[in-house]
Amino acid sequence: MTEEGLPFILNIYFHFLLTLAKFGYMRRTVVATALIITGFVSSAQNKDSLMIRRIADEILINGKAYDNLRHLTKQIGPRLAGSQGMVKAEQWGLNTMQESGPDKAWLQECMVPHWIRGGKDEAGIITFQSTANGVGKSKMERKLEVIAIGNSIGTGPKAIIDNVVLVNSFEDLEAKKDLVSGKIVFYNYKFNPAYVSTFLAYRDAVQYRGYGASRAAKYGAIAVIVRSMSHSTDNNPHTGALIYDSAYNKIPAVAIGLQDADFLSDKLSREKISVYIRTNGKFLPDTIGHNVIGELKGSEFPDEIITVGGHLDSWDNCEGAHDDGAGCVQTIEMLRAFKAIGYKPKRTIRFVLFANEESDAGGFTPRGFSFSVSDKQFKKITGWRELIAPYGGGDLVKGGGGTDIGPLNQTFGTALASLNPDNQRYFDIHHSRNDVFENVNKRELELGAVNMAALIYLVDQYGL
Amino acid sequence: MTEEGLPFILNIYFHFLLTLAKFGYMRRTVVATALIITGFVSSAQNKDSLMIRRIADEILINGKAYDNLRHLTKQIGPRLAGSQGMVKAEQWGLNTMQESGPDKAWLQECMVPHWIRGGKDEAGIITFQSTANGVGKSKMERKLEVIAIGNSIGTGPKAIIDNVVLVNSFEDLEAKKDLVSGKIVFYNYKFNPAYVSTFLAYRDAVQYRGYGASRAAKYGAIAVIVRSMSHSTDNNPHTGALIYDSAYNKIPAVAIGLQDADFLSDKLSREKISVYIRTNGKFLPDTIGHNVIGELKGSEFPDEIITVGGHLDSWDNCEGAHDDGAGCVQTIEMLRAFKAIGYKPKRTIRFVLFANEESDAGGFTPRGFSFSVSDKQFKKITGWRELIAPYGGGDLVKGGGGTDIGPLNQTFGTALASLNPDNQRYFDIHHSRNDVFENVNKRELELGAVNMAALIYLVDQYGL
Repeated sequence: MTEEGLPFILNIYFHFLLTLAKFGYMRRTVVATALIITGFVSSAQNKDSLMIRRIADEILINGKAYDNLRHLTKQIGPRLAGSQGMVKAEQWGLNTMQESGPDKAWLQECMVPHWIRGGKDEAGIITFQSTANGVGKSKMERKLEVIAIGNSIGTGPKAIIDNVVLVNSFEDLEAKKDLVSGKIVFYNYKFNPAYVSTFLAYRDAVQYRGYGASRAAKYGAIAVIVRSMSHSTDNNPHTGALIYDSAYNKIPAVAIGLQDADFLSDKLSREKISVYIRTNGKFLPDTIGHNVIGELKGSEFPDEIITVGGHLDSWDNCEGAHDDGAGCVQTIEMLRAFKAIGYKPKRTIRFVLFANEESDAGGFTPRGFSFSVSDKQFKKITGWRELIAPYGGGDLVKGGGGTDIGPLNQTFGTALASLNPDNQRYFDIHHSRNDVFENVNKRELELGAVNMAALIYLVDQYGL
Repeated sequence: MTEEGLPFILNIYFHFLLTLAKFGYMRRTVVATALIITGFVSSAQNKDSLMIRRIADEILINGKAYDNLRHLTKQIGPRLAGSQGMVKAEQWGLNTMQESGPDKAWLQECMVPHWIRGGKDEAGIITFQSTANGVGKSKMERKLEVIAIGNSIGTGPKAIIDNVVLVNSFEDLEAKKDLVSGKIVFYNYKFNPAYVSTFLAYRDAVQYRGYGASRAAKYGAIAVIVRSMSHSTDNNPHTGALIYDSAYNKIPAVAIGLQDADFLSDKLSREKISVYIRTNGKFLPDTIGHNVIGELKGSEFPDEIITVGGHLDSWDNCEGAHDDGAGCVQTIEMLRAFKAIGYKPKRTIRFVLFANEESDAGGFTPRGFSFSVSDKQFKKITGWRELIAPYGGGDLVKGGGGTDIGPLNQTFGTALASLNPDNQRYFDIHHSRNDVFENVNKRELELGAVNMAALIYLVDQYGL
């Protein structure tokens, strides 16, 4: 459930970060809490090259990540924080971690928010005047594929029916602020195709999902409809989180797919339209969740901890295969591979399936890593480029490291890194019903684990 | 229809290369026939950066490649050289090229080979002894999903039924050469997962499809079954070309999918198995095909020609969406984009849909280019890296340029380049029924065109 560029997520989930902050931390990533600098000499590169090749062979030839992902997605499926699916997923995670050979594995209790969709009868219906046959007007209906946006309140059984005001941006909302009272606001802000990185398009557009409800409620709107943040060519709606501004009424919010959004905006440019919306979302009290942790104890520097992980929870409308089942099974796969080849780490490595929300980018073909590190550390890391590049992840850049974990670097100076998979396909399926096992490629998934394991190996050998 | 590493393809298709050799040549690629060196100065980079951004915006915002690919794959579909589908595709190609605004467009006649599958009743059935229930033996059958290998002769209506000899490699065949006479040989050589580049695995394995029939016929085998060259997790068989050695009998050859191959090899390790094979392939006389060519005339150096293209033909068991529909619509898209932004090339650019066989790598996310050029030329090209890298294709390496077009470089010194898309998914669908429109991603397809257009722009501006 990527939330890059949505700073409010930090507020929502910061208590989990504190839970995690007692060990060095990263998302599918590398952290050394005590930054003892060991010299990296190129004479060691041949040994390292061979060791990374052994890791890669183990994962590419004997890998279990894909089968584990099949189990997680098909046998367990959706696992929203607080749900029964998440409880099952934690048990599966602990068992699978234990079978992969850690020195120890355990569950770490934490509190998680507990939003529920509250029923499968979400609905959206457009009513408009047809003039298609040219012989007078008749009332027509078209069903919209809607999905309530996460954290939103429901309309309840009486639903909402009202006219819709189209706005193409927040600027447009300001211009139309006198028109929206008592109405439904439709944010039709488009995912910008000119950005090469789809994460930039997401950062640009996600504010409408995140803040749109309260911005419209400020002017008296009674609900919002949001165009999905996606380049997909299908009509699936994409959910995700919003946050209400406590200064304004909480109003229902739904996302719609791109075909419906185009239909609705086209109609609205020519006539008045009424839309029926029914949703049932609500928050229950925070509940107990668990981080799943496996550990390989360091032989030389056991107090220096490298943490790598993905988040185990998913949205409830999909299998969470890319988001972030991929990161979870890659995390377990790295543990399994290190153990299978008999690697004894110098530093302690912790493999974590996080209980709730983490930055993620899917299980696509790896292209590189982003680092939140000092210039000196980055120089050392770029010295490893030729060891990692043969596996696809050689594009090493500064910046990034994940929204949720950023404070660890800002506050404690913890080094952070994120794997950057190719991102062209991610927002086609992100938070939509198409985030399923079938859309994950076995080799791409495995190569992600290979590249992360290679980086962890190098940090373990040479520190930062 | 990738044939990298299969040198015999050069023999089969060399007459087409000669047809093409009268203009400078590349596959989705860049060639300057007259290599006039113009200095590239970094002060020009800002202008170039802006121009490439314009090209990218045109393709990413107004692109037609995806819609064109939908038409080619869904309205025309399979288009084996010599087939009616290919005739339709040529007409579509010429029309679409003309609509995209070339100075001129035309069909260039050439001869193409004309192999036909000869009927849809291809079949494979395994017969074996079941001991599953533990109460004596009973005769069991299992249907194999088979596809005749391209260029192979058919069994004819009487089919072939015989025992199968499992060989895991050509070395294994030599060891078992006294056992294969009158039998069916099953090559179960596995696509090696340890290669990070799937093209290396293909180069390693494709010899069994290409040469396996004649190598087995040498020892009296009457047919061969070949494990598909793929990492796929499904059971689809993958076809492709073979070449018979005229010293031995031509024998039928089929490919089977990976699940069937595992089943068959498992059974064969424990008992004698008989297989029924029916195929109908044959060659008709060579027939007429056409290269489809669109041209933008150079304003300063009209006699220097940059050629870019993909191949229009496909296998008959699929839509040829990645192979190489993608390359074709990217080629037309570059022409359309140059014209749409009003770009006037200094050199002549030819956009070609080749009549028959070309190296290809699918319409996946672009990662870089391979070049067959001199060291001096390569140094110049790598100076452009920072201009191309923002669009994903910044990994510039020497080597490559395509199997079929290699002789142009070796004989005439023509500079060659190939786009390198990410290759992890290619052999999942390559030459199988899953090479369909739905497996092409719109953005990845468009970004391939962006990167090739950027490179062509730079070669046009500065020569090689």
